[in-house]
Amino acid sequence: MAPPTPRLVVSVDLKKKPWEQALPLHNRWHPEIPPVAHVKVSEVFRVEMVDWTGSVIKDDDSAADVKFIDLSTVHYLSGPIRVVDKKETPAMPGDLLAVEICNLGPLPGDEWGYTATFDRENGGGFLTDHFPCATKAIWYFEGIYAYSPHIPGVRFPGLTHPGIIGTAPSIELLNIWNEREREVEENGHKSLKLCEVLHSRPLANLPSTKGCHLGKIKKGTAEWEKIAKEAARTIPGRENGGNCDIKNLSRGSKIYLPVFVEGANLSTGDMHFSQGDGEVSFCGAIEMSGFLELKCEIIRGGMKEYLTPMGPTPLHVNPIFEIGPVEPRFSEWLVFEGISVDESGRQHFLDASVAYKRAVLNAIDYLSKFGYSKEQVYLLLSCCPCEGRISGIVDAPNAVATLAIPTAIFDQDIRPKAGKVPIGPRLVRKLDVLRCSYDGNLPTTKNPAASM
Amino acid sequence: MAPPTPRLVVSVDLKKKPWEQALPLHNRWHPEIPPVAHVKVSEVFRVEMVDWTGSVIKDDDSAADVKFIDLSTVHYLSGPIRVVDKKETPAMPGDLLAVEICNLGPLPGDEWGYTATFDRENGGGFLTDHFPCATKAIWYFEGIYAYSPHIPGVRFPGLTHPGIIGTAPSIELLNIWNEREREVEENGHKSLKLCEVLHSRPLANLPSTKGCHLGKIKKGTAEWEKIAKEAARTIPGRENGGNCDIKNLSRGSKIYLPVFVEGANLSTGDMHFSQGDGEVSFCGAIEMSGFLELKCEIIRGGMKEYLTPMGPTPLHVNPIFEIGPVEPRFSEWLVFEGISVDESGRQHFLDASVAYKRAVLNAIDYLSKFGYSKEQVYLLLSCCPCEGRISGIVDAPNAVATLAIPTAIFDQDIRPKAGKVPIGPRLVRKLDVLRCSYDGNLPTTKNPAASM
Amino acid sequence: MAPPTPRLVVSVDLKKKPWEQALPLHNRWHPEIPPVAHVKVSEVFRVEMVDWTGSVIKDDDSAADVKFIDLSTVHYLSGPIRVVDKKETPAMPGDLLAVEICNLGPLPGDEWGYTATFDRENGGGFLTDHFPCATKAIWYFEGIYAYSPHIPGVRFPGLTHPGIIGTAPSIELLNIWNEREREVEENGHKSLKLCEVLHSRPLANLPSTKGCHLGKIKKGTAEWEKIAKEAARTIPGRENGGNCDIKNLSRGSKIYLPVFVEGANLSTGDMHFSQGDGEVSFCGAIEMSGFLELKCEIIRGGMKEYLTPMGPTPLHVNPIFEIGPVEPRFSEWLVFEGISVDESGRQHFLDASVAYKRAVLNAIDYLSKFGYSKEQVYLLLSCCPCEGRISGIVDAPNAVATLAIPTAIFDQDIRPKAGKVPIGPRLVRKLDVLRCSYDGNLPTTKNPAASM
Amino acid sequence: MAPPTPRLVVSVDLKKKPWEQALPLHNRWHPEIPPVAHVKVSEVFRVEMVDWTGSVIKDDDSAADVKFIDLSTVHYLSGPIRVVDKKETPAMPGDLLAVEICNLGPLPGDEWGYTATFDRENGGGFLTDHFPCATKAIWYFEGIYAYSPHIPGVRFPGLTHPGIIGTAPSIELLNIWNEREREVEENGHKSLKLCEVLHSRPLANLPSTKGCHLGKIKKGTAEWEKIAKEAARTIPGRENGGNCDIKNLSRGSKIYLPVFVEGANLSTGDMHFSQGDGEVSFCGAIEMSGFLELKCEIIRGGMKEYLTPMGPTPLHVNPIFEIGPVEPRFSEWLVFEGISVDESGRQHFLDASVAYKRAVLNAIDYLSKFGYSKEQVYLLLSCCPCEGRISGIVDAPNAVATLAIPTAIFDQDIRPKAGKVPIGPRLVRKLDVLRCSYDGNLPTTKNPAASM
Repeated sequence: MAPPTPRLVVSVDLKKKPWEQALPLHNRWHPEIPPVAHVKVSEVFRVEMVDWTGSVIKDDDSAADVKFIDLSTVHYLSGPIRVVDKKETPAMPGDLLAVEICNLGPLPGDEWGYTATFDRENGGGFLTDHFPCATKAIWYFEGIYAYSPHIPGVRFPGLTHPGIIGTAPSIELLNIWNEREREVEENGHKSLKLCEVLHSRPLANLPSTKGCHLGKIKKGTAEWEKIAKEAARTIPGRENGGNCDIKNLSRGSKIYLPVFVEGANLSTGDMHFSQGDGEVSFCGAIEMSGFLELKCEIIRGGMKEYLTPMGPTPLHVNPIFEIGPVEPRFSEWLVFEGISVDESGRQHFLDASVAYKRAVLNAIDYLSKFGYSKEQVYLLLSCCPCEGRISGIVDAPNAVATLAIPTAIFDQDIRPKAGKVPIGPRLVRKLDVLRCSYDGNLPTTKNPAASM
Repeated sequence: MAPPTPRLVVSVDLKKKPWEQALPLHNRWHPEIPPVAHVKVSEVFRVEMVDWTGSVIKDDDSAADVKFIDLSTVHYLSGPIRVVDKKETPAMPGDLLAVEICNLGPLPGDEWGYTATFDRENGGGFLTDHFPCATKAIWYFEGIYAYSPHIPGVRFPGLTHPGIIGTAPSIELLNIWNEREREVEENGHKSLKLCEVLHSRPLANLPSTKGCHLGKIKKGTAEWEKIAKEAARTIPGRENGGNCDIKNLSRGSKIYLPVFVEGANLSTGDMHFSQGDGEVSFCGAIEMSGFLELKCEIIRGGMKEYLTPMGPTPLHVNPIFEIGPVEPRFSEWLVFEGISVDESGRQHFLDASVAYKRAVLNAIDYLSKFGYSKEQVYLLLSCCPCEGRISGIVDAPNAVATLAIPTAIFDQDIRPKAGKVPIGPRLVRKLDVLRCSYDGNLPTTKNPAASM
Repeated sequence: MAPPTPRLVVSVDLKKKPWEQALPLHNRWHPEIPPVAHVKVSEVFRVEMVDWTGSVIKDDDSAADVKFIDLSTVHYLSGPIRVVDKKETPAMPGDLLAVEICNLGPLPGDEWGYTATFDRENGGGFLTDHFPCATKAIWYFEGIYAYSPHIPGVRFPGLTHPGIIGTAPSIELLNIWNEREREVEENGHKSLKLCEVLHSRPLANLPSTKGCHLGKIKKGTAEWEKIAKEAARTIPGRENGGNCDIKNLSRGSKIYLPVFVEGANLSTGDMHFSQGDGEVSFCGAIEMSGFLELKCEIIRGGMKEYLTPMGPTPLHVNPIFEIGPVEPRFSEWLVFEGISVDESGRQHFLDASVAYKRAVLNAIDYLSKFGYSKEQVYLLLSCCPCEGRISGIVDAPNAVATLAIPTAIFDQDIRPKAGKVPIGPRLVRKLDVLRCSYDGNLPTTKNPAASM
Repeated sequence: MAPPTPRLVVSVDLKKKPWEQALPLHNRWHPEIPPVAHVKVSEVFRVEMVDWTGSVIKDDDSAADVKFIDLSTVHYLSGPIRVVDKKETPAMPGDLLAVEICNLGPLPGDEWGYTATFDRENGGGFLTDHFPCATKAIWYFEGIYAYSPHIPGVRFPGLTHPGIIGTAPSIELLNIWNEREREVEENGHKSLKLCEVLHSRPLANLPSTKGCHLGKIKKGTAEWEKIAKEAARTIPGRENGGNCDIKNLSRGSKIYLPVFVEGANLSTGDMHFSQGDGEVSFCGAIEMSGFLELKCEIIRGGMKEYLTPMGPTPLHVNPIFEIGPVEPRFSEWLVFEGISVDESGRQHFLDASVAYKRAVLNAIDYLSKFGYSKEQVYLLLSCCPCEGRISGIVDAPNAVATLAIPTAIFDQDIRPKAGKVPIGPRLVRKLDVLRCSYDGNLPTTKNPAASM
């Protein structure tokens, strides 16, 4: 007889707040956030998720929600889910948790998403020094396809994936995180010269009780106070997986996560209908609510067997991934290159971040010639299935990074042609992204030669 | 009637030295290196090339040639080639030169290549602090496939491409290069904190008369002396294309190069049978001699029409590429992740180079569990068709980089399995890469927790 | 604001019989079956479907349901759906109806399917002379993947599609169908020598009131009696599309259907989780209930503009299809060939059906060496994503047909190896397909040399 | 040290006739044609081949060479090549010969090919009743790409392959061939009703001394006379492989051929730059001279181990193939369907040849709306990388065949659009295929409704 339909272990009600859900959500990493559900290896189970902001960003006509968002509250995660084997023995520290993504998608009845970039004073993005304003584009889904009224002329199939999937850290690992991130937050400006080129602030997001939600742990209790002060923010990807934002983790993928606490305590969220490598605009995928259908296996002792720590402790590991056989196929790509020379002309040494910044800037300027505003292209490159590669990392002093864009997502031929960029009806783009003013007083990075 | 067979415009004789060729090779970028050949738009022409070292690296049993190579002599390029339109008007500064790669391959009779990493005191590589010794692996070709006696158990089809293709810089552009690279070479150690993690030295390779070859310009003349002092080294990719090392520039690709001097003066070399994204071991592709069959078009005024300068002058541009429809297909990939925390556990800020270093280190340690030495894997990941991605570049403080390896290149199943890594006859690898001793006294970066 | 979620225009309740559904199903083609739903161009709408037998085939331990099925009742279709443009003008005869498949899948809560071959006396299959018994295999779904307890060692992602999608015929077209199929049914045995090789009976399925369901038309009325006598069976694909069984009509595909009656009267059903080219076992895909999310456009006058009739009337046309960008990727295939020489050694003239029969037989015998029964392979090749090609159709007297099987669907390496077929634990397959006895007295085609 | 460059075991001189070559060619299958070369397992060797007609078809302005060709002379093959193992023991009957295609391509200096269809009285083609005239199109190669002055607006990468590769038959197998083909040639018109639809004549090509070439066996000797009377023509694919015309047998493929005589006696020829499934125009690929680089292995006893005879004797087997990882990728396809109803409207029973004929006719009429003559499309569909599938072979009475065409090979968008077929400058196609008059008096099949 058939196994049961995937069991719904975490459901969400989009009409309720994240903290009002039957199984309350959490937005921090901590070993003591108690599981809200239990699953066995080999069973296929279903997890529903709100969008990363918990419905703060709306399908409306303004980017004000983006500009004024309280980022202390992200990301709302479903879980933790405790995983046991067939004999009910839980996953144990030192095991590997193999999580297969059997299926995923938007939540029925909520088939839309958004891509945005934050105000420079409140989150920013990879190019925030060039684009300091908050902007937003809404995307609607037609089955596998997404299109946006704010970025006309493009339509593409989604390579849908969870932005965040991870296990709970042990207290020892949590301490490592907090210590190293505090160091960069406090001293980074002095020691990290890259900051001159990448302008996101703050340098790290340290634990904060503000905006903190800890699932079943009631706010105001002593336990809550203690954990909220320790619990790590969910912004960066770390040893436990977390916010990896690997866009190919779609249907049929498999994720091998290290286990740090008994039961593994798997949490997931931040569903993306589609994302480009880098997720450059920061709120940068097509962000949505959604569901995952997952199947877990436990590889006993797998951390030691398969992962090698790369750092001072055995906890300094990273997950491994398998990419599955079902992805949208594109056969033609237009590729933009960047080298590690910044916009001022200054040479950096093998710096892939600087090189990638230049590649993205090159692509934005190029595509804006085809009837788009630069803000439209910035959001598009953040969420369409483009590939960001480290092509060369040894040819001192220049790292070479590339950004490859599938040409088939456009309704016009975007390749260079003999003669001028074609002028035609498709170039009259009436609509643009939604945007707010930038009210701060930081200087905008100008492209010195753009108007020469 | 048929158009003629691709015209051989530059031939090489592998029994001769680079400077003894009928059309002498060059190993510097300078506007005054005179063209050795002329081509018209639309004609398909053939260019032959020596390997990047000009046959210094041998198919023998020792890595000593790698250890003691004089790097002032690389890369030997074929060209420059002057390009004119059908009315014999040359490509002019401000044009775009569209170069289609119609075909390419090894030189008949020379179907082998090598992958190597340099001694830490003489060139190094991306992981030179971990692997300071010079090592070498030889690859033999069976049509589209390569295999190595030094890295048994892998065989893969080549995604063959030229590592270097570019146009001559104008004197103005050359001055920009020399100035910015001198700055980083002289002051970089003070200002660039990334150097603590990436250990290649020197930080840049400035013009040097030592080892310099300038094609038709005779050594010892006053002209030679002047140009040799100004001419840029070929190591880094720059505004003119050059050493991009973009592994997907294979059959059917198209390259849009900016034109800085009359005739464009196209040069190419550094053929790669195959390369992984990043080319991490530095001498890192499967390096070989080879040929290109090319077809050029001129897009008049195309620089202004299609490229936007990203820097202080209109010359601060980058080429654009189109990737063609013929690539080896792989459907299953194993993916390693790195975050911008270095081996000492120190947090870096959105640093994709650090993240990629960790991803590569993770992959090396993982694959070495399957019967390989770490040096074998280091060379393999440098030259097999693996993909290096910037997956997340906004989730402060961690950049997330990934390295995806096609599983089909191995003769064993390298995916994690429940239970131990399988032990079997294939794991007994008798052979290893060729290697030399490291005689310097720089410390080797150890993985502190690897043996815990 | 967002467009509404796909509107559910036809729902089904799997606990009810096909004729008890709120919108009753139909299992015949006729212009006078009234629409059960209306849709507008550009809106995305959802249609649910029972499996083709209306739940006659069960997830149980016996193939008796297959053996004794009443085939006069298939296929149960959802619809007809009337299509109008934005001004409410319906699609008109002569138009093309462009139907995009935005999404599709199994019905939530019913994630299983079956593959079967019928008894030779009751439906048969492509190889019924070799395999006269009714057999059945059950498949369970894990998201995109299917696996069967009856065919262990294989698991593959579904290329899910509707087996049937079509528009209603006009009365003129219906008459053409009935006439030509009556001719083949009555006289085919005398004139069609192919029948000696293909043993399915009857040669055609003519209209029958037995088992007939006509949607909203009440059984027993005079109207029902008239239409039931005229209405075409749904077994073959025809000019209106219908039972095309084109396995690549999956997510993102587009179907251009000719319109023969006002409103187009689109019907669909026979959902397949996966199918091989040819669907050789007849009940041959992974048959399931399911849903489609569709979007229609009307191309006015498109039949004349885009389709050329190929036969005596302007109605002798065929639909056109576009295959979309999202399909499971396989990179390695094992290919079996057949030529138009039959099992008795007799030469046929450029007969692709005979050649394909031999290719399938070759594949079955080959794969059965790896631990499978021939019946398991027969069902597997009917439903897995294998490709059946007409490779050569001009080299008299032999047509060459090929069957390509993706090797990655197996948990063992099925390629030929030096030495014997590997013997190992995986070859001990305890389970087999469910099967019944064959109680007829037709001879079984033996492979004369198989035991030599 | 490196293995030697692929050894050239058969070279051809295109300025010489096939029978004047240093190693004379042959155009028949017979066990007694002596080997012209010997190879060992594991060595990579190179074989050169003339085009299948031995340079009868010219790169000129007339199709007269096609119309008047003497087809008794085709195909000219290179070989036979005797294969031995490392101990010099030859391949023996009952073994499998695994042949890997390491590389292949046109002969340097002869980078062109042709596609043609024969006069109905002299060879014909799949659609000879519709297109009775001899026609010809010339193709020129630009590396991986082909384009034709006679079919403007298309350009595509070649999936290059040998049309013919096979082992020598034993005398027993040869007798089986001759007997069964004689039967169809003599009695087929009475018994094969398919002939009413497929009009190629003769039904088979029996041994003929006319035009016969037997390699090293001197014409006029008694031995020659005997063998020439027995030796099988090379037109059809058979148990030994031979003229399989499987378009995906390109770089990286592997062919498992049964061995019938000592040494295997491998022959190959009929190089195709590109071919569509079915090769419908008969002289239908882009026919060219070329080379193969091959590597052989012997699987001792492999025929019994891996192949199951499907007919009266153990010799009734077919080869197996592996398709490699390097093929041009296309992501979008336009698909035409055919059912087994012929042009007169007559119903056939599950006849895939009739269905495929209708699919091809549908595609020709459709594409001719975009500015092409039907003859241009007929030749194009014969040689471009289109896929011909047997989609449904069980839904009596209609077989469903499909022809899928990659849309990217055209310089215009050939998909149906709302409104008319676009009219533009690209539709004015001045050039057409070369063609001759048809001087016979057989009726042409008209499409009865085409002008309604």
